[in-house]
Amino acid sequence: MASEFEIIRRYFDRPARSALLGVGDDAALLVPAVGMELVATTDLLSEGIHFRSGADPRKLGHKALAVNLSDIAAMGATPRWALLAIALPAADERWIAQFAEGMFALAARHDTELVGGDTTRGPASGPITICMTVLGEVPAGLALLRGGARPGDDIWVSGELGGAALALARPGIAAAAMRLDEPEPRVALGERLRGLASAAIDVSDGFAQDLGHILERSGVGALVHYDRLPRFPIDDPELERRCVLSGGDDYELLFTASQGARGEIEALPAEIGLALARVGSIQPGDPKVVVLDAQGRPIRVAPGFDHFAP
Amino acid sequence: MASEFEIIRRYFDRPARSALLGVGDDAALLVPAVGMELVATTDLLSEGIHFRSGADPRKLGHKALAVNLSDIAAMGATPRWALLAIALPAADERWIAQFAEGMFALAARHDTELVGGDTTRGPASGPITICMTVLGEVPAGLALLRGGARPGDDIWVSGELGGAALALARPGIAAAAMRLDEPEPRVALGERLRGLASAAIDVSDGFAQDLGHILERSGVGALVHYDRLPRFPIDDPELERRCVLSGGDDYELLFTASQGARGEIEALPAEIGLALARVGSIQPGDPKVVVLDAQGRPIRVAPGFDHFAP
Repeated sequence: MASEFEIIRRYFDRPARSALLGVGDDAALLVPAVGMELVATTDLLSEGIHFRSGADPRKLGHKALAVNLSDIAAMGATPRWALLAIALPAADERWIAQFAEGMFALAARHDTELVGGDTTRGPASGPITICMTVLGEVPAGLALLRGGARPGDDIWVSGELGGAALALARPGIAAAAMRLDEPEPRVALGERLRGLASAAIDVSDGFAQDLGHILERSGVGALVHYDRLPRFPIDDPELERRCVLSGGDDYELLFTASQGARGEIEALPAEIGLALARVGSIQPGDPKVVVLDAQGRPIRVAPGFDHFAP
Repeated sequence: MASEFEIIRRYFDRPARSALLGVGDDAALLVPAVGMELVATTDLLSEGIHFRSGADPRKLGHKALAVNLSDIAAMGATPRWALLAIALPAADERWIAQFAEGMFALAARHDTELVGGDTTRGPASGPITICMTVLGEVPAGLALLRGGARPGDDIWVSGELGGAALALARPGIAAAAMRLDEPEPRVALGERLRGLASAAIDVSDGFAQDLGHILERSGVGALVHYDRLPRFPIDDPELERRCVLSGGDDYELLFTASQGARGEIEALPAEIGLALARVGSIQPGDPKVVVLDAQGRPIRVAPGFDHFAP
């Protein structure tokens, strides 16, 4: 069986590019660009909770990086470096090779360099655990925060909502499964929103809940028109509402911007190849999301995803 | 039961100090100091592998941060920011409160700010998994790497070796348990070794194996005198050799320096309150560790710790 050191060398130890020093020393050594602020995020994925046992390791490699790139995108930052820690019940080389393939394919598309990590054996019958940390950079003062939404701002969302949640509710729909297993982090959009959006977040816990995070940090309310929400096609109206409003894992960007920015934002889809929908507006008052149906009646929103909810 | 968001807020969301933005947005926002390089490291600890079930959460909080601070120290860097991801089978508030207490106590001593994280529920009967990432800074060009050892350099080690391994072999010895459960990262030493050491590593996999990493990266050999190694008191000579040479988890710094630096290094213990021992010398030739006993006979070194070794 290959040793920990051989495995790291074989699959993860690539020559440093932008890093002064990548995998293979006590820590990575990086040179932050002048005039940039550093953005850092970490996410942990557990087998049986965030992905099912036997999940395709190539897709897992993609997703583990994608969810972190999505956080970087939601800050309006450019991803640069990643650190990966994995606990595996056994040193399954085939699994590691495929995981690395999925991760490096996505990393290459976003010019993100794996610079460090930790590969360890987890408990023998225990779950696979993947912890990815990504560092990005954003010009000083231009990061997109959750706290900048102001009354009168438009609310925008990218792509389509509900596909990932549909994949959980109804396994077997290929297009939905793809949204769940191989989400596309909206990095180019995040970069273009610098100086344009007033607040941003990625949709990981569900549209209503994630919008709620913006409202809380900004001290404002929101009015959303359900029929303007970009929706993954779902034939059951009840299920659709649940997936679209409360489903997590879509990794679309949800952002606010002043009405004056509409023209510029409406020009973005043609430029970056990603649909953007204006779905409502920020209101003065309590941090509460009000969603109206086509007839102007409020829709009850089910709570979104909370890992420790009873 | 408290929700994920409440738990994060209650125990981990403290006002940002040096960070522009800490816990509570999509990612942390940090300002790297001008003229500094960034050092990044991540470590994953699994219940049942890196710590026993039922381990004191306060000590775990300490250790999870300590092992990362130790990597930062081994680079000669100053720790600045930490990100923490935890997967827990249930939201045990008492556990989280004590974990946070242990972690923040050590963080405060090293002026390290928790700026982000991810708290999730792991599989119901699954292990607790802790993934910590620490970022530090080091003046450009002064990081301590593994690859700088040259023939003729002295080999030095801090503190004492073997205590942590003894705690595993013989539970119940309080002083040894403390070395295993609450290692003291040698941050002040690492900082003082900038410009002084030619190579450095922390002793996490065992003295011989970690010295081997320096030798491999530097393309040199090493001669070590066993009786000069600083040893945790162990009454069984056979066990002592195993613990001192091959035991992991000591988190002492192992470094090399030119003979010309001896005077400066010998003055350090008085300054930083940590013993330093000169234990051997770097040799030309293959990356092989030769350990001699008091009679000048080579000692066979058992392999060190490898997570995936058969």
